[in-house]
Amino acid sequence: MELTVDADRLWADIQDNGAFGELSTETGTGRTVLTGSKANRRARDRLVDRLEDAGCTVRIDAVGNIAGRWVAPGVDETAPAVATGSHLDSVPRGGFFDGPLGVYGGLEALRAIQESDVAVGRPIEVVSFTEEEGASFGSGLLGSAVATGLTSPEAAAALTDGDGRTLGTALEEMGYRGTAAIDAGGWDAWLELHIEQARRLERADVPVGVVTDVTGIAHLEVSIQGTADHAGATPMTERRDALAAASEAVLAVEAAAQDHPSETAVGTVGHVEVDPNATNVVPGAVTLGIDIRDIDRSAMDALRSSLEETLAGLEADRSVRTALDVELDLDPTPMAERCRDACHRGSSSMGLDAPDLHSGAAHDTMHVAGVTDGGMLFARSEDGVSHSPAEWTTPEDCAAATGVLARAIATLAGAHSTDRGNG
Amino acid sequence: MELTVDADRLWADIQDNGAFGELSTETGTGRTVLTGSKANRRARDRLVDRLEDAGCTVRIDAVGNIAGRWVAPGVDETAPAVATGSHLDSVPRGGFFDGPLGVYGGLEALRAIQESDVAVGRPIEVVSFTEEEGASFGSGLLGSAVATGLTSPEAAAALTDGDGRTLGTALEEMGYRGTAAIDAGGWDAWLELHIEQARRLERADVPVGVVTDVTGIAHLEVSIQGTADHAGATPMTERRDALAAASEAVLAVEAAAQDHPSETAVGTVGHVEVDPNATNVVPGAVTLGIDIRDIDRSAMDALRSSLEETLAGLEADRSVRTALDVELDLDPTPMAERCRDACHRGSSSMGLDAPDLHSGAAHDTMHVAGVTDGGMLFARSEDGVSHSPAEWTTPEDCAAATGVLARAIATLAGAHSTDRGNG
Repeated sequence: MELTVDADRLWADIQDNGAFGELSTETGTGRTVLTGSKANRRARDRLVDRLEDAGCTVRIDAVGNIAGRWVAPGVDETAPAVATGSHLDSVPRGGFFDGPLGVYGGLEALRAIQESDVAVGRPIEVVSFTEEEGASFGSGLLGSAVATGLTSPEAAAALTDGDGRTLGTALEEMGYRGTAAIDAGGWDAWLELHIEQARRLERADVPVGVVTDVTGIAHLEVSIQGTADHAGATPMTERRDALAAASEAVLAVEAAAQDHPSETAVGTVGHVEVDPNATNVVPGAVTLGIDIRDIDRSAMDALRSSLEETLAGLEADRSVRTALDVELDLDPTPMAERCRDACHRGSSSMGLDAPDLHSGAAHDTMHVAGVTDGGMLFARSEDGVSHSPAEWTTPEDCAAATGVLARAIATLAGAHSTDRGNG
Repeated sequence: MELTVDADRLWADIQDNGAFGELSTETGTGRTVLTGSKANRRARDRLVDRLEDAGCTVRIDAVGNIAGRWVAPGVDETAPAVATGSHLDSVPRGGFFDGPLGVYGGLEALRAIQESDVAVGRPIEVVSFTEEEGASFGSGLLGSAVATGLTSPEAAAALTDGDGRTLGTALEEMGYRGTAAIDAGGWDAWLELHIEQARRLERADVPVGVVTDVTGIAHLEVSIQGTADHAGATPMTERRDALAAASEAVLAVEAAAQDHPSETAVGTVGHVEVDPNATNVVPGAVTLGIDIRDIDRSAMDALRSSLEETLAGLEADRSVRTALDVELDLDPTPMAERCRDACHRGSSSMGLDAPDLHSGAAHDTMHVAGVTDGGMLFARSEDGVSHSPAEWTTPEDCAAATGVLARAIATLAGAHSTDRGNG
């Protein structure tokens, strides 16, 4: 398969897209592209232009998802497409690559296929999902949730941002409130290229890796109720200190994740609220926001059980009351064998030995892989940094990962070489 | 010594004073009397009226402290006075007794002496200090700090509240910005009656106790710097989790205070700030506000040393950086032997066996006892609750504690009985 990615064209796309919402910081040049912002509208407009330049027919759905569809000459235009893409929105003060690499990498893969001697047997779609980060309307992976039927377009449109503006209004104001929904279930297969956001590829000294599973994620909210008391007048023996109890819980979450047989299990207490939170008052109540992830569902369940045991112990030993609420609970998502195989064949044909790795972060692919064959490629990201202006993937790595993506798409789309000169 | 406290008159004073800034809550009727508020002005006006009714000459000093001085017939008006009092300001949503019991108990003690056959040899002063709670101008024990020379009247007047109004302006607006400073060092002795804010008297089933020492207090701010990281993509082995480190510090503070030989030592982590404080981000930085108290300076120092060892261990074991800042450091304050004796003699003469106990809370007496002989009496407070509308001391206990106060003042003022009929 002769496929040549134009590294300069891809890099220019990523840089030009990065100019929307660009900000300069001490740690580098980043961007803030919140769904519904002017920067988001300009980034969308540019993508639509580039998709049309590449001969795609562009659809906008009811949640503002963008899909450009290219049907090669002679291909059945009703055949299920091989789709690829990611997202253009960012977290506040985010980086250039998280999202855009997958969108413009997908477009560049399409262009490489178009310019090659490879004949594909299916339409190819390049997609940008709306509000992947959830930074504006409070619900991440939103566009893919609508495209896979998990969330209705109406419910999505009714979500509000910090100013009380609905997503529906924000989309209308940008000119990106389309009709119906892009149906991910209608795709033959899906691939997403994304930066790794970790250091495994850097350590393995390879530009690209093949994702085996996307982690399951549970968000648990634990509240611990003790008694607020005078820090001076309350003897140590008479306290029901909610923060001391919470501290035991924090360390127990850490220890359980460290000790668990699964190498991929992680447990984090990232959020803490203390009441009344005054130095001279024994804390009366603490709320913890806990994040548990693994690609092994039973390991996630074991971490949660371990936490419940810890809480029961705190109730017994410290006379506090505890409660545990599940705010989010997503199963691990294995990638489809044929998608993984196509990625490995692509990397091998480029002389690369792309390692298998899991994704500890959430991606739209979690949703899409529930309705069709899904796969992911990771590109090496410097020092594993993401969600930061310091986010960085070299032009060479962007091109290498996109080269693998192009070959995998071609394989999934039933590519065979043609002799163009004698066609 | 025949001294009769009028329990009804005292109760009426406390209740009438409580009407200023009164608020009804689920847990009882409380009050909010912030320095410089209308409620504070009205409470001050009422006190001045009552002091004048009792034959006192009233002085207002540069920080708004109020002192009513009564010179008994035949007493040298230039002699150092025996002074007593407390404060009228409250925390937001505070109770009726914290402060006012000592002010109106002091006035009632004076009236009881005036109405008795007891002849005192010194003037008696009844005092209300400004801004004891520090709830409005950010600096507690402020009036006594000025009266003892620790803070200049100018520095106090320049303090600002949340609206940017200076204390000087607030006092002027209330009509309580006087001249010079009341000089606590000129008093022969000082006694403060206050609610206990703990449960020791309740458990001992006695209405009043004699304070031996007021606790020393250190406020330490500990900052722990780790690395903020993606909660999903960062393996457990690669984290520098500032919250997990901080949790070890919280438990170490608790354990050190529990294990320390001193029964009176307490250690509290009451304040926590986490950055970025998002469930799906490994905490990058945590700040802890730590309160350490004891009546034994060496025990306070041992708690601090223990904390420093803990922090050094965290730096070694968790690769975090830590810093410790001392925000407040007040030595323990022993009460004067003659003041304690006078209180015990007063309680004995009433058939009460007032136990010795320490104060774990800060009081204006901490300052005053640095410049003259100081003592404190505690009145039993229901369930030890303070700084709350649920704060409660019974009319009988208020009267009993005030009876002891009156006798102790009389003793300190060199009382001897007279045969009034033949005087």
